[in-house]
Amino acid sequence: MESIDQILSIGRKVDPVILDFLTRKVDPAFAPIIKHQIESGGKRVRATLTILSCMATGGELTDAWIPAGIFELVHNYSLIIDDIIDRGEFRRRVPTVRKKFSDDMALLAAMFYREALDEMAEAANPAEDIRRLTRETVKELIEGERRDVLFEQSGRESPYIEKYRATHVSVEDYMSMIGKKTAALIKASCMAGGYASKTSPKMLSALENFGWKIGLAFQVIDDYLDIFGEETGKERGKDIVEHKLGNIAIIYALNELDEEGKRTLMNILSSIKVSSEDLRQALALIERTDSKNQTFSFFLSSVMASTESKKSSLFESPLSKFP
Amino acid sequence: MESIDQILSIGRKVDPVILDFLTRKVDPAFAPIIKHQIESGGKRVRATLTILSCMATGGELTDAWIPAGIFELVHNYSLIIDDIIDRGEFRRRVPTVRKKFSDDMALLAAMFYREALDEMAEAANPAEDIRRLTRETVKELIEGERRDVLFEQSGRESPYIEKYRATHVSVEDYMSMIGKKTAALIKASCMAGGYASKTSPKMLSALENFGWKIGLAFQVIDDYLDIFGEETGKERGKDIVEHKLGNIAIIYALNELDEEGKRTLMNILSSIKVSSEDLRQALALIERTDSKNQTFSFFLSSVMASTESKKSSLFESPLSKFP
Repeated sequence: MESIDQILSIGRKVDPVILDFLTRKVDPAFAPIIKHQIESGGKRVRATLTILSCMATGGELTDAWIPAGIFELVHNYSLIIDDIIDRGEFRRRVPTVRKKFSDDMALLAAMFYREALDEMAEAANPAEDIRRLTRETVKELIEGERRDVLFEQSGRESPYIEKYRATHVSVEDYMSMIGKKTAALIKASCMAGGYASKTSPKMLSALENFGWKIGLAFQVIDDYLDIFGEETGKERGKDIVEHKLGNIAIIYALNELDEEGKRTLMNILSSIKVSSEDLRQALALIERTDSKNQTFSFFLSSVMASTESKKSSLFESPLSKFP
Repeated sequence: MESIDQILSIGRKVDPVILDFLTRKVDPAFAPIIKHQIESGGKRVRATLTILSCMATGGELTDAWIPAGIFELVHNYSLIIDDIIDRGEFRRRVPTVRKKFSDDMALLAAMFYREALDEMAEAANPAEDIRRLTRETVKELIEGERRDVLFEQSGRESPYIEKYRATHVSVEDYMSMIGKKTAALIKASCMAGGYASKTSPKMLSALENFGWKIGLAFQVIDDYLDIFGEETGKERGKDIVEHKLGNIAIIYALNELDEEGKRTLMNILSSIKVSSEDLRQALALIERTDSKNQTFSFFLSSVMASTESKKSSLFESPLSKFP
């Protein structure tokens, strides 16, 4: 059996394809800024999913290169934007584009990525389906990011955001947000493989369903690790420091805590600066509840929920979206 | 003879087309943010140019709607980004998208504009030429904006920008920058009309040449009015306050001033905050030179330079770009 690393190494093979399209008609002085996000690493999960989905449905490896490059590039486009919005300084211990080259240059680089995506979509086969899927996916990402920002409880000096913050986030609100922020792109990465292999509508719908479920699971486990993880290399409770209410482990804890506990946790999330003492207290409050177990079984059920069982409509993909 | 207002009113007719595409699949809570930039006005110069270019080359008005909407939307996309980069607060006395809804929401709105452009390009006829023209034009805008930022002498707290600032800008550097920042889009707006009417390559090349020249002239007169304008409604010397070296009137003045005058003007441009006394002094220094006459005759020659006369290669469009 292949190790995860061996499987993911397939995805890394799209880097030259991405860099080829990204550097077309770019000014030499701009090129290092454009290349930084791609060259600073990444697991290439999305490219791998496109390639595997293509081959699993009878396509050739060569059919998958460009679609795989597209959805990996969509991801990297969203990371540059995400870092601008969240003032991110490091990813995988490497300075982010904005940290290294300024917010302004990062913004211009992100815009350039979108143009490269257009050029790649034109070269893809089938171009029209891939282009529509790219566009719909980016729209979902934008909306997911918009909601994620509004689910934060502090930290953005803007009267508009202060006014429209969501001060209560239900499990349904959360699912809808992560569906857009995370699952839509994972789903699209799988579907792109199906388009590339020119598979049947039935197989395409299976890929869509599969991508959607693992996309949700991917985000839920990310939330789990943020709050309960021990050796991930990332700092624990980053979502708390960033005032995020859009983390399922926090939502479960809030649903269970008594009034005083709830108030304390919400006060920490909405404080201007979350100190390390605040963070310790917030994590202790969450650990006092059954959130850890609930989050983990939510993860399991999001992976395992099948369309047939209709066990939970929460996990259903908005299938009508992509014909 | 029609008044300018009557001519421009043609361009305003594309607003419903733009708003139709812009609001597709948009969350109701996001819609006001998306619509603000379009609804807050504008002269619709680019849409007007597309429509007139289409009709002047034998096309129907209906052929021009979508291409006109596209290049007007490209312009508005660039304005939202421009305001984020330049911390712009008002345009035509209306708060900018970022001022009204925050930088983060403005950024997401701009991204959404790019997706609407993709949808419009798919509906355009001929789709492929319009799509390529859109992409190439946005790439030019990005590069123009990048250079404009690097031509500033202060005001951005970024080690990268501090390091790569251009401390000398020649007339050639300036022309190249405004070609990308301004003329490329005006040129594309005219060419789009020619694509829409399915005109001959010869007519298309004439539209390209025309659009390029008036695009350059448009920026030169904008610079002129910023420094020497009296009753434009805009504050005079905004480019000086914004530390911009990328203004032809400033470049001409610097070329002519003696060492002391040059040093004084450069010191003002590169000071952290330009006071009203600094501004007054800078304008007086510029007025002491022949910059006003030179800028105005530069404007005239950019409008009048013909491809035949080869009077100045400065005004030549990079014709090879668009086949």
